Order: sequence, then structure tokens, then C-alpha cells
Amino acid sequence: MSQTPEIKIALIGCGTVGSGVVRILQSSADQLTRRAGRRPVLKHVVVKNPERQRDVSLDGYLVGSSVDAVVNDPEVQVAVHVVGGIQPALDDVTRLLKAGKDVITANKALLYAHGEELFALAGELNRTICFEAAVAGGIPIISAVNTALTANEILSIEGILNGTSNFILTRMYDRRQTYEEVLREAQARGYAEADPAMDVDGTDAAQKLSILTRLAFGTRVPLDAIVRQGIQHIELLDLIVAADLGYRIKLLATSRLAKGRLEVSVQPTLVRADRPAALTSGADNIISIEGSALGMLRLAGAGAGQMPTASAVVADIVDYATGRAALTFQSLLRMQQREPIPMQPQEELSRRYYLRFTVADRPHVLADIADVLGRNAISISSVRQDETEDMADGTGVARLVIMTHRTTEGRLRAADRDIAALNSLRGARIRMPIAE
Amino acid sequence: MSQTPEIKIALIGCGTVGSGVVRILQSSADQLTRRAGRRPVLKHVVVKNPERQRDVSLDGYLVGSSVDAVVNDPEVQVAVHVVGGIQPALDDVTRLLKAGKDVITANKALLYAHGEELFALAGELNRTICFEAAVAGGIPIISAVNTALTANEILSIEGILNGTSNFILTRMYDRRQTYEEVLREAQARGYAEADPAMDVDGTDAAQKLSILTRLAFGTRVPLDAIVRQGIQHIELLDLIVAADLGYRIKLLATSRLAKGRLEVSVQPTLVRADRPAALTSGADNIISIEGSALGMLRLAGAGAGQMPTASAVVADIVDYATGRAALTFQSLLRMQQREPIPMQPQEELSRRYYLRFTVADRPHVLADIADVLGRNAISISSVRQDETEDMADGTGVARLVIMTHRTTEGRLRAADRDIAALNSLRGARIRMPIAE
Repeated sequence: MSQTPEIKIALIGCGTVGSGVVRILQSSADQLTRRAGRRPVLKHVVVKNPERQRDVSLDGYLVGSSVDAVVNDPEVQVAVHVVGGIQPALDDVTRLLKAGKDVITANKALLYAHGEELFALAGELNRTICFEAAVAGGIPIISAVNTALTANEILSIEGILNGTSNFILTRMYDRRQTYEEVLREAQARGYAEADPAMDVDGTDAAQKLSILTRLAFGTRVPLDAIVRQGIQHIELLDLIVAADLGYRIKLLATSRLAKGRLEVSVQPTLVRADRPAALTSGADNIISIEGSALGMLRLAGAGAGQMPTASAVVADIVDYATGRAALTFQSLLRMQQREPIPMQPQEELSRRYYLRFTVADRPHVLADIADVLGRNAISISSVRQDETEDMADGTGVARLVIMTHRTTEGRLRAADRDIAALNSLRGARIRMPIAE
Repeated sequence: MSQTPEIKIALIGCGTVGSGVVRILQSSADQLTRRAGRRPVLKHVVVKNPERQRDVSLDGYLVGSSVDAVVNDPEVQVAVHVVGGIQPALDDVTRLLKAGKDVITANKALLYAHGEELFALAGELNRTICFEAAVAGGIPIISAVNTALTANEILSIEGILNGTSNFILTRMYDRRQTYEEVLREAQARGYAEADPAMDVDGTDAAQKLSILTRLAFGTRVPLDAIVRQGIQHIELLDLIVAADLGYRIKLLATSRLAKGRLEVSVQPTLVRADRPAALTSGADNIISIEGSALGMLRLAGAGAGQMPTASAVVADIVDYATGRAALTFQSLLRMQQREPIPMQPQEELSRRYYLRFTVADRPHVLADIADVLGRNAISISSVRQDETEDMADGTGVARLVIMTHRTTEGRLRAADRDIAALNSLRGARIRMPIAE
């Protein structure tokens, strides 16, 4: 295949994912060439520290620390951008596009915050942006929305989009460990960042959901428009009580059409124990898309990790090299021009809820809470109060779990404000929706 | 979008799936046009009986009973072929390709039997064949293999590819009904054909698996090279015993690389009850693909049915109209030229097995069977014999279930011949592998 045309690639970033990309390009060159019809040739590698030893050999590539070398090399057709964070990523991608390079990126935060302007810029410049690896790692969810579901009106997207949170929740229940114990272990094993805030507070999942929502529904959803809660306040007790009731707790990201409006949330959610999402354990991701013709399509697999993410990046390289990616991106740009679906106000999201309170063990506490719920027109489906625990100071606390009938987020928030004012409360109040 | 170029389509066949295609083309014309960048315009509909009333309106189309009208119309660019069976499908598709038409087909039997020659013909004529709907209905498995997994060596494909069989097995266990009872119900509801042989004997799943195997591994696998068993002889008893042991029985289609050879089978298989395949119920399909970089990717959804299959056909129309399909098909043709992976001889497939015998209730029967297994070097993992049942003629029969350690299909077949010769046997002998 020596006469096969080449496609010259620059790699920006050679950390975990970047090294995986290099490894696949090195080990599978012939297969990729056969697939693509062009030989992918890595020419530049841009890294912060060109001297650092890496677990892949960069011999034979032009290794430097500035994207200038890429921007100024007319041979480079496509830049594979696998650096996180907003800056310098935004400036770099902008410069690369303006220099006539197409871009393959795995940077979800960048696409969440600046995807719209970058897509518009690429459109003006007749360039292509590929980003399969930016959402759910190796799971081809971007491709599913952009190509497999084109005959459908998408009705809902629901899934587990953050592997770290799912690892923590799964491990807490399976090993009967506390949140803090599991988080420490996850950090020690490299499953969780030293600062896990973006993973456990739902930001990461919400950014991914926002990207998917824009593709699927045409609607731009900023983080603060998403009903969002993290998993930091979930206790082992909640997982055990939920299991007793036939549920697992999962950080579920959901965009759903309801009466012509879009309900978007990222929340720890009670999912019936026999549902595929409930059975998705460890760091895996799962996504269910409901289409008007197709019905429910589910995709599950590794949502992160070096080689799964690199697999998605290299699939983008092949897609790009065949010429398909440019056609898909033009299709995506046309779809961005459709009328966006209006958002449902957060207060109007309607679900059943699981509520858990830690309360002083004294008369009338349950009555007080039930009274607040009743005054906010929230109907109780079931109540469960565990045995009292004696605290160090000699007072008793009881854990009270209330399952509600269908009600709105707005009523729940109003009731929560009233309940917070009760002086019989101890510790966190937990509120989770129950998946249908 | 009145100046958008058009793409003229002929529909060959307007049965269940064809009507679904017409419905989507009618209801979603604007969305499809936006996606595709060209307006899909249905011009011809070719049906056996043009006079028949249908549940979609064919007003405004050229409705006829011969493909000649399509072959001779230079305006038609692509023929959507949704007729089953080998003939006249083979002749029609051949003529359409030779007349310069691209072809979108949902005909799995045709692709199984003549895919190779049709692909080669299309390659010579520089035409494109799309066939997402031919395998697993609405699940984009063809796209996953051809595009999402391009960075991977595929290590295995395993799945439930026949909805009818899965419906029957699920329903038998859930309702504690016999095979015959459930089959009658499935036929009454239209889930099973009047002649269900191809579904329940594994032919349908094996044809689909053969198509996937050729795409994923480059190897052409004729039906008789596949270790194949149907579900016709599975009794409710087997489902219940398997459940007691922690398994569900599923008609599992598997192609797996093992030491450089390809093991291909379609067999009712014991699957651990908490595995995604075990939890796939009713007429749904599920497919797990293992890639060298990606790890395990699972896709699940409706494997058949009018609208899910039509969704896949129309996705192919959009893929074709954007120009992507031609690029993917050229990539597929290049991949067909790779060195195929050699097949593992059937006798050498190595698994654990579930064996069930109905035997005369008299001394030494278990010893006889155990002796045969031992002489064939098959090691027993566990034995279970149920309470004796008295038959109408006053003799007793016992049901004996043996789980083996890992052994080969060849040893099992040899042992089975010896066991068949024992005169203490009554009724069917059941042999199923156990999934890892």
C-alpha cells in the first residue's frame, strides 16, 4: 500500500489519552490505512515538556512545546487535540481552524463552554470538528445521534455519563463503605482526580449532557439551567434503604421531551434494580436514547480510560481520513439551525421523589414534616423510620425516609425551605427523584 | 429549502418495513432534508399487487409491479429494497446495480448467501450497497463495526440476534409455559411466522452472525461451519433448573477470536442471570463487541419490527444522501481484502456445558452416563437429579442434569453418540454451552 496517499496529523497533548492515540497509530497503521484509504502519518507532537520520558516512543515525530509549529506547517491537515481545560485549548483550536486545520478534540469542557462559537467558526472556514471522544469515551454516542438516529425525532436521552461517580456509588453499596472511604480508594487507584469536585458534583455529567442535548434537541442548555445535584451527600444508608425498596442509586443525566418542552437534569436518582442503568457498575457508562421510530436504543461500555478514549479519537481520525467526518459535520451544522426546543422551567419538572431526613428522636417530628409536605400539596406514598441511634451527646436521632407520589421540583424546593426551618432536623436533607 | 437538490428514490417492496419507510419519508421530510442536505423524494414504489389497499397512502408515487420501471428511469439514484428471500431479490438487486442505481437493502438472507458477489459487483460498478437494517433491525451494529470500532482489532461479537426465539424463551420462563404454548401465542400476535423454523432453529441468527463475522473478522462463514442448535427442544424444566443454578437460557450467537482462530456458534446458552444478555427480554436484541482498545461495547434495542427496521433503512437513506455511505462502502470493500482469520474446527470449541437427560428410573443409569463421560475425558462439575415422575405406562422417568468442566464440542459429540446408545434413555438429550 505504498502508493496510498498520506494524511499528516499533529497531536496536541500527549498525556494519558494522547499516548493511547500514539500507541494505536503505531500498532495498527496498516489496518487504519486499509480502513481509511489514506495512511495516517503522525508528524508533530506538541507537549508541555518535550524532554519528559513517556510510555510511548516519540522517535521520528517533530516534538515541540508550541502549536506554532503545527499552525505554520502547511502539510498538517488535521490536529488531534487532547488537552483538557478551557485555555489555552480555546485559543489553540481557534488558531488551528484559522490556519486551515481540521480538529479532532476530546475536550468536553471546551465544547460545553465554546462549542457553539467553535462550530460556527469551523463552518465559516469550511473546516471540520470531530469530538466523539468528548462524551462517554469509547461509546459512539455522538455518532448514534448524528447518524443512526437521523430518521427519528429524539424523545429522550438518559444515562450514566460520569464513571467516577458510578464507581463510588457502586463500590459504596457493594462493600458497604462510606463515601469518604471509597473516594480515598478511587483517588489512590487513579479513578478519581485529586480534586474530584467536577465528577462528584455533577458538573462533568452536566457538561456532557449539555453537548448531547444540543445535538439531539437543538437546544443550548447552560449548566445553571440544569436541575443538578452531586453524589457528595449520599450516605451508605441511602443506598441500603433504596436497595431494600428495590432500587439502586445512580447519578442519572436526563434530557427528556415532555409536552413540547425539554426537562434536563443531572441528579442521583433511584432506578429500579432490574433496569440496565441500575446494573451498570464500576466506571462504565450507559446511555439510553429513545427515538420516535426506533424506540429505545441502549449503548454501554467504558466511558473513560486511556485506550477506550483513544479508540474513539482514532475512530475520528479514520472517519476524517475517509472524508465522512466532513459530511457529518456539515450535517450537524445544518441541524444546529433548527428551531430549538424550549426548556421546561426547573420548578416544573415532575417526578416521584425519595426524601431522607436525619431528625431528633422526639415526639411530633414526623408530624411536623408531614405537615410541611401536606401544606405544599406533596402527597406521601410511603414512610420508613429506622431504629433510633444514640449520639455521643446522649440525644437520639432517627432516620426518616419518605417516598412521595408524583410532584414538582418547585413544590419540593418550597417544602425543603420549610423543613430546613424546623429545629428538629440534624444533618443533611437528601432529595432524589425516582426514575420511571 | 426549496433550492435544496433532490435525491430520487425507488422503493422495492411495500410490506411491513416498506410502509414504515414511506411513513417516515412522509412525516419527516423536512428534518431528513436538513440532515441530508438533499431532499429525499420517493418516486417509484414497486409492489406485487399495486391495487392492494395499504396503511400508507401511495398517492403521488409511480406505483407498479415491475422493477423495470426503476431500472429504466435515469432519475432514480437509489433503490430501497425491502423484499425478503433470495429470488427475485438477487436478480433485482443485480439489475439495479448494473443500471447504475445504488441499493439500500434490509434482506439478510440475500446478503448472507450472495453478499460477497453483490459487494464485488457493486465495487466493480462503483456503486454502493447499504444494509444497516439487515442485521438487528434498529440497532446500528453495522455502523459500529464499520465506523466506531475502526481503531480496534475486534476480539469477539456475542449477542441475541433473533427476537422471536428470545420472546419465546423469556415468556416460557416468566409464565411457566411450554414451548408449544408460547409459540402458538407468538404466532397469534404476529411475533412468530406461521412457519417459525428459520427463527427457532437458529438459521436467522446464524445468517446475521455470518454477515457480522465477515465484516468484523474478514472471514466468510457458511451456515454449516457454525456450531448451530435451535431452541425447539428446550423444555420449561431446563429454564427452571438453569434459573436455580443462577442462569438464564438465551439463544446466543457468538464469533470469538481464540488463539488466532475464529470460534463461531449459535446455540441456546446458559448466561449468568445478572449479565446484560440474560436481562434482555422479549423480542429485544443485544450485541456485545469486544475491541482491543475499546474493551466491551454493548448495544441493545429493538432487533425487528416495522418502525425500528424502517428507522435503520431511513438512516441509510440519509447516510447515502449525505455521501457518507459511499465512503463507508469503499472502506468496507478495502477491508474485505484483508487476510481472513481461519476458523476453529467445530470439534475444538472449548466451553463448559449443561447436559440434561430424561432417563429410566432404575439402578445404574447415572453410573452408565458418568462412565460414558469419563471415557470421553469429560469431567463432571455438578449433578442434579429431580424426583422421579411416573409415566402413563407405570414406568418411572428421572431428569438428570449434569454440568461439566471445560471440555470440547468434539468430546461432547462423541459422548453423546455413546449415550444415545444406552437403552435407559427416554426422550431428548439437551446439550448447551455455558457462557463465560
